[in-house]
Amino acid sequence: MGSQDVKLLGLWVSPFSRRVEWALKLKGVDYEYIEEDIFNKSSLLLELNPVHKKVPVLVHGPKTIAESYVILEYIDETWKQNPLLPQDPHERAKARFWARFAEEKLLEAAWNALCSLGDEKEKALKLAIEAAEKIEEEIKGKKFFSGERIGYLDIAMGWIAHWLPVWEEVGSMQILDPVNFPATKAWMKEFLNLPVIKDNLPPTEKMLLYCHERSKILSSNPRGWIRVA
Amino acid sequence: MGSQDVKLLGLWVSPFSRRVEWALKLKGVDYEYIEEDIFNKSSLLLELNPVHKKVPVLVHGPKTIAESYVILEYIDETWKQNPLLPQDPHERAKARFWARFAEEKLLEAAWNALCSLGDEKEKALKLAIEAAEKIEEEIKGKKFFSGERIGYLDIAMGWIAHWLPVWEEVGSMQILDPVNFPATKAWMKEFLNLPVIKDNLPPTEKMLLYCHERSKILSSNPRGWIRVA
Repeated sequence: MGSQDVKLLGLWVSPFSRRVEWALKLKGVDYEYIEEDIFNKSSLLLELNPVHKKVPVLVHGPKTIAESYVILEYIDETWKQNPLLPQDPHERAKARFWARFAEEKLLEAAWNALCSLGDEKEKALKLAIEAAEKIEEEIKGKKFFSGERIGYLDIAMGWIAHWLPVWEEVGSMQILDPVNFPATKAWMKEFLNLPVIKDNLPPTEKMLLYCHERSKILSSNPRGWIRVA
Repeated sequence: MGSQDVKLLGLWVSPFSRRVEWALKLKGVDYEYIEEDIFNKSSLLLELNPVHKKVPVLVHGPKTIAESYVILEYIDETWKQNPLLPQDPHERAKARFWARFAEEKLLEAAWNALCSLGDEKEKALKLAIEAAEKIEEEIKGKKFFSGERIGYLDIAMGWIAHWLPVWEEVGSMQILDPVNFPATKAWMKEFLNLPVIKDNLPPTEKMLLYCHERSKILSSNPRGWIRVA
């Protein structure tokens, strides 16, 4: 499918811009990818997303859309092929609910655990594991969160499969103990085996290097990286 | 329109459950309202929303939906009359973007300002005013956020019209100075004048009393109230 003048401003290591790429690829929408330097933001980014000044930003002709979950809904409503969200309103509600839950509970706590030490780290780890346990219940008995094929919720949860293990390693911590999270671990494997995903991931070694370097300054400003990325 | 077995678990003072009520009333959907005691949560609430244990919860026959923005989308997709979201994907994206912005930036900062003192309060107030300025730009030149009639974004922003002035009074602070926020102030007046809104608001005097009482213990646990309400 032609690009129809679709551009994506992203950052190679951002799980938020990567999820937009997965959606565009699942839809078969061609796009021009523009890598942003988040430490030296381009005038284009500041112009297109003056409110948050963050990636990802999707540009579709004269239209600009920011915030990855908002972009996913836009993509699903604009290019109808290969629907990401289910058709049934209640199933759609559940997908949106769990997408937000993963972001606000697991991602937040896992990130805080990575960026902290001592009691604070232990507290964040406990919250992360509690959140992960709820997600484990949700994926139990399913191949993908969306059923037999990947959809919106798998894309939303995708960072768990590839980013979380890096954070665990860099933070010398374990959230997803395989004994307690067999269903999540099985989903991670299925998800990462899909060509559309495995061909569109940042290299783990490069992520580890980046994350180690960033983690040196994260403790003084734990919100810094995630806010810009 | 018959209730079709619709129930809403809410809290009289919660802007989040009130926005669901506005949506149901705009759609003409009858529902049974069940008031929750958030300090002594019912077994029904714990059963229906085991993840967050919060109101609002919408029950539609055998289906349960939590999180107010997720509920608004469910309502709009289930009862098609009087659409809340615009039809155009880009307009829908903008509505969702600004709804999240108001919640994550203005509501968060205004609440933090209410619950803090000194430098922390000043810092939160500055953030709240900066967020409100962006919303002022968005409403300029329009009657409602959604155009000539109210829609999703007005419902999402509704707390600004009725709750924020109470927080300002209780917190002895001003966020929406009428000189700097003429468009927001004009929208508040229009919004509160609509019968569907003005007949479905918690009484200001009761809110002031409640908020004053709660504010006495808020400083020791500023996240307590908003998390449960």
